[in-house]
Amino acid sequence: MDFEVTILGSNAAIPTLSRGTTSQYVHCKQRHILIDCGEGTQMQLRKFHIKYQRINIILISHLHGDHVFGLPGLISTMQLMGRTQGLKVYGPIGIKKLLRANLDAGGGYFLFKIDIVELENDGAGLIFEDKCIEIHHFPLKHRIPTHGYRIQEKPATRKLVREAFNKTGVSVAYIKKLLQGEDITDNLGVHVTAASVTLPAPPTRAYAFCSDTAYSEAIIPYIQGANLLYHESTFLDKEAERAAETYHSTAKQAAAIALKAQVKLLILGHFSSRYKSLRLFQEEAEELFPHVSIPEDGMLYVISN
Amino acid sequence: MDFEVTILGSNAAIPTLSRGTTSQYVHCKQRHILIDCGEGTQMQLRKFHIKYQRINIILISHLHGDHVFGLPGLISTMQLMGRTQGLKVYGPIGIKKLLRANLDAGGGYFLFKIDIVELENDGAGLIFEDKCIEIHHFPLKHRIPTHGYRIQEKPATRKLVREAFNKTGVSVAYIKKLLQGEDITDNLGVHVTAASVTLPAPPTRAYAFCSDTAYSEAIIPYIQGANLLYHESTFLDKEAERAAETYHSTAKQAAAIALKAQVKLLILGHFSSRYKSLRLFQEEAEELFPHVSIPEDGMLYVISN
Repeated sequence: MDFEVTILGSNAAIPTLSRGTTSQYVHCKQRHILIDCGEGTQMQLRKFHIKYQRINIILISHLHGDHVFGLPGLISTMQLMGRTQGLKVYGPIGIKKLLRANLDAGGGYFLFKIDIVELENDGAGLIFEDKCIEIHHFPLKHRIPTHGYRIQEKPATRKLVREAFNKTGVSVAYIKKLLQGEDITDNLGVHVTAASVTLPAPPTRAYAFCSDTAYSEAIIPYIQGANLLYHESTFLDKEAERAAETYHSTAKQAAAIALKAQVKLLILGHFSSRYKSLRLFQEEAEELFPHVSIPEDGMLYVISN
Repeated sequence: MDFEVTILGSNAAIPTLSRGTTSQYVHCKQRHILIDCGEGTQMQLRKFHIKYQRINIILISHLHGDHVFGLPGLISTMQLMGRTQGLKVYGPIGIKKLLRANLDAGGGYFLFKIDIVELENDGAGLIFEDKCIEIHHFPLKHRIPTHGYRIQEKPATRKLVREAFNKTGVSVAYIKKLLQGEDITDNLGVHVTAASVTLPAPPTRAYAFCSDTAYSEAIIPYIQGANLLYHESTFLDKEAERAAETYHSTAKQAAAIALKAQVKLLILGHFSSRYKSLRLFQEEAEELFPHVSIPEDGMLYVISN
């Protein structure tokens, strides 16, 4: 099943002609999730041919404009295009007031239900689940309350090896237990181990999003072992002081977090527009952690097992 | 002296990849004015190489998102780029609350003064003047309170014909009166007519902006004789009923207004994204009024005498 992340905007506070402000689209098992929505996100979705009406969950990290000023416009466009399907928006305390101020100013009424969930400052835990995925939030270390997110698959069941199972002669009524990993003995005394007739479930995949944040080892338990980690790196190490002052990270710090959290691949982002080339971000991060990617807007990351 | 209008966005509610939502930049005698600020305006300013820090007056027509959702982002970017110069924003009642909600959500403080002037609903009159220009607002006919704007030069003085003046032998102290068009007689009884030593001032130029609005002849006195008129034409005539229902205009209606107001050139705009080609807008308008232009985003209109 698909698990993909498309980078819609990878620049820090100020958009450039080639890099938008923060936004990402996550397609995970037919769930369509937008993370952050800087100004121009609706244009980026259009540019990269993503069907924005499919999006039914929006996660907002914090209320700095470069992460949220595109949200009123996107919601307005969804409405103008005749949306009826509901939309869930998760974000920090204050997001409800912000959205209402923008949508009410134009005298807007909405044909679809917008369910806005305000997350507690410094809170962490499960915020959404269905039969396929879970979404968790956790606190980042920024100037204003900011949430990181982890999107992960639910554990799949083991896979039945039909031929091996048929040979046992036990009733198909036992399949459910065997798929859950339990060994069984049927009413005739035939013993079958789960391992002999099923294959283990594939490991679950996870994507973790951390922006904006200063260096903080406190986030590691929440992003531990993720297949893909997006960690902001607004600056290079020689601007470490500026990074600390503004509660942002350097490429080196992002790499240190990726290493300690044992993720598989690190995507950097939220680059300050002072940097003309991003080659040094890659080099600096790779000194600590070997699997680093510098995205271009529109790049798609496929998360495989 | 320069008087130029750059179209930054010419589409209606939903931006496309080639046309942004409403915004225009007016450069008039070293005054730098932005009219409306749909989402993505800061990117359009950058794309068309306009120095946004020069902008010191912003006029907002109404609070529908496609005219205002780019304003918080533009102001944030001005701040991040170290602006200290003040900014005047004129718009409908409610714009102050809308801007504050967006800028306060991010915990923003501003290094420059933003002076927000809320214009009375259905009001009309002078809202800004300095020694070179005047800006007037007037009510448009839309679903929510909406303002049209007229930017015009102040009358210039007559021009002295130095050679003719010198021949009269009167004191230079009389030049001021002569430039004001007054005839004079000096203390020796020499009579000099203004017409004999000065040339008339060039006619003043005016730009009128009308978006969004239904067809309304009530606006004609405010836009009368403008050199350039921007009048919205969301629809073609065959959608006239839809235009009336949504308080928008057709190309034919915009042309009828241009004709009655005796303007020199009509720019159409605010095109519904349902139309793939805009050729019919031009044809329909030209049936009534011969001087019609369909802008592309980035197009510059120079207003000459």
